[in-house]
Amino acid sequence: MDINNYIRELCAAARRAAPSLASASTAKKNAALAAMAEGLTADCASILEANAADLAAAAGNGVPKTMLDRLRLDEGRIRGICDALRELCALADPIGSGERWVRPNGLCINCVCVPMGVVGMIYEARPNVTVDAAALCLKTGNAVVLRGGKEAIATNRALVASMKKSLAAVGIDPDVIALVERTEREGVSAMLTARGLLDVVIPRGGAGLIRTVVENARVPVIETGAGNCHLYVDESADLDMAVKVAINAKASRPSVCNAVETMLVHGAVAEQFLPAFARAAEAYHIELRGCPRTCAVLPEAVPAEESDWATEYNDYILAVRVVDTLDEAIAHINRYNTGHSEAIMTASRAAAARFQAEVDAAAVYVNASTRFTDGGEFGFGAEIGISTQKLHARGPMGLRALTTQKYLIEGDGQVR
Amino acid sequence: MDINNYIRELCAAARRAAPSLASASTAKKNAALAAMAEGLTADCASILEANAADLAAAAGNGVPKTMLDRLRLDEGRIRGICDALRELCALADPIGSGERWVRPNGLCINCVCVPMGVVGMIYEARPNVTVDAAALCLKTGNAVVLRGGKEAIATNRALVASMKKSLAAVGIDPDVIALVERTEREGVSAMLTARGLLDVVIPRGGAGLIRTVVENARVPVIETGAGNCHLYVDESADLDMAVKVAINAKASRPSVCNAVETMLVHGAVAEQFLPAFARAAEAYHIELRGCPRTCAVLPEAVPAEESDWATEYNDYILAVRVVDTLDEAIAHINRYNTGHSEAIMTASRAAAARFQAEVDAAAVYVNASTRFTDGGEFGFGAEIGISTQKLHARGPMGLRALTTQKYLIEGDGQVR
Repeated sequence: MDINNYIRELCAAARRAAPSLASASTAKKNAALAAMAEGLTADCASILEANAADLAAAAGNGVPKTMLDRLRLDEGRIRGICDALRELCALADPIGSGERWVRPNGLCINCVCVPMGVVGMIYEARPNVTVDAAALCLKTGNAVVLRGGKEAIATNRALVASMKKSLAAVGIDPDVIALVERTEREGVSAMLTARGLLDVVIPRGGAGLIRTVVENARVPVIETGAGNCHLYVDESADLDMAVKVAINAKASRPSVCNAVETMLVHGAVAEQFLPAFARAAEAYHIELRGCPRTCAVLPEAVPAEESDWATEYNDYILAVRVVDTLDEAIAHINRYNTGHSEAIMTASRAAAARFQAEVDAAAVYVNASTRFTDGGEFGFGAEIGISTQKLHARGPMGLRALTTQKYLIEGDGQVR
Repeated sequence: MDINNYIRELCAAARRAAPSLASASTAKKNAALAAMAEGLTADCASILEANAADLAAAAGNGVPKTMLDRLRLDEGRIRGICDALRELCALADPIGSGERWVRPNGLCINCVCVPMGVVGMIYEARPNVTVDAAALCLKTGNAVVLRGGKEAIATNRALVASMKKSLAAVGIDPDVIALVERTEREGVSAMLTARGLLDVVIPRGGAGLIRTVVENARVPVIETGAGNCHLYVDESADLDMAVKVAINAKASRPSVCNAVETMLVHGAVAEQFLPAFARAAEAYHIELRGCPRTCAVLPEAVPAEESDWATEYNDYILAVRVVDTLDEAIAHINRYNTGHSEAIMTASRAAAARFQAEVDAAAVYVNASTRFTDGGEFGFGAEIGISTQKLHARGPMGLRALTTQKYLIEGDGQVR
């Protein structure tokens, strides 16, 4: 079958199943989540076997180390995934909540929270996203079409088969979770143009995926996960604190989107700060790519090229640039950033306030690591992704981001 | 100059001016709105002169009557526009409002409401939208690029010149309101691809504009205003009430998006209801386009073609179809509607509940006219348009729809 027709049939089946889930009770949806957690635990051995096959194939194809880290499952990670499912049961169900008011003419207006309908997820080879996305969509009454990275296809098949079994056991149509099993690249475009079949597509991934989405999307999208994040060390910064935060922001988990990719350093502290940072960075084997002034202070730094400022490495690489003013730092960030997370290290309240007001991003930090941009860390309990756009949702997206509203109006013959 | 460059320069100028407006106080923004109301009142004569020139040219070009109605200004309508500006002063300013919480690790998270940045408006020849959109964007701290229908260009020039004068008088950079004065069609595509210059584009218009937007948009958009609305007369309906509401929904102002375009009638009441409706419709010279069963009851009806079910006439024309069940009515609506406003006339609570749950639209009415889908009628006080999409905003959009959020996080060296 043509890939386009394959995708459309998959989406259409999810769409047919969606209304039954949209009207399911909170209790039934929570029962499904609990069953999914039990099922994944019971199926752990076969899931890990599938994952081992994916890992072996990926390693054989020369997939980079950071991607292997995202792809890998083990018993601990599966336990974590199942714990997250159980925590999701405890979160309030937004569906059906709302506000009701009566107009002077007697019309009763009820604005209620309703599911989007069918959500398309396009993401990289991260099996935990397969379960997270399916679970968050289920809790919000949405059917979901999952298109994960091809390197994780065996793992995803095992995970989705297990979840579908659990859905059937509690009486929910298993078609509400659909996995795109044919992973040719054209399937992504087919999803992005499935108007009338997908209500929203959420791409999670790097700059390449986001570009594809912007060029091809004919359905509404929420762009997520492109994180060219910056940390700016101001002249008034506590330099010991700055070293600690910068190392954390870069090296605690370089493969994720809230890791820092470029560090900007005020010229007045560059000669003192950069060597201290470089010493701490040695333990992590961080490759430094510097502007000429950085390279003059740090002979071990590689000269940065223009493209480095725009690159999300997702790796143990950091671009470093010396700037002379706060304005220059803000201008650099607003030129190259992806609207994700930005941080300033400073003791100046005035500099902090200007940085937070003028930097255009979802999350702007003062004296803290960008690594905190995360639904769990913000206290939302669950996250479908981190939106880098301004429309609908910005920053970590919880359950609400997967819903829309509907006005239900009751009258007794009112005319205008 | 190339139209693409012309648009990009216009957007870039608005973008440069935007930060000063984003940080303006509520008092200053309200002073600007009051000055705009005064200015438009003072400039009334020259605005009406420009409008008369537009109307004469449009009539000469054979522009349809309903479009002339939208284009026409008079002293009363200008007074109404100015009253709306003054009412906008009284509305709460959403910018800067938000929520603040502290995480167990001491991080203080502040989620604040901020302007989008620069908003692009693409709309038809409706001069009132020029002022409404400029004012709503101003109140929410956004710069705006206005691209109205070419038939209204002289009127829009006069309106924007007057508003810019008022902005300058209160010390706001007049570049925050930009008018696209070159109205060739290619300017629309140029706006839809102005990535990095426009933060959101809001098209207001019919199916043709929405199609152009879907095909061409590379910037985030909020689709509005396509209203293929339906009224379904159930077998249990109060038929006198149904006649009154149906006439109002079709004929009180056929040129607007919340007017009904297709009426569905249950077979059990068609023979009684349709003649009564047709008699009432005579006074408005409504052309009826019916399915075969409708035509059998109403010999004056023209046979409807398949395309009629998908057409937003915006005129004194109504498509009519007889259906045998509620399911058939819901299926017809979910196939042809544009996600705007749908109504059922019924005395059955069960039918009303199913219709409201299963029809997929922004506003779903029981026993009331679809004409109430409007920011003012809902009690929101102001409206930038009626969203027919599920993302970001759905239904009448008030001030909030023109804003986004930003997380401002403060720490003292927290790492993860």
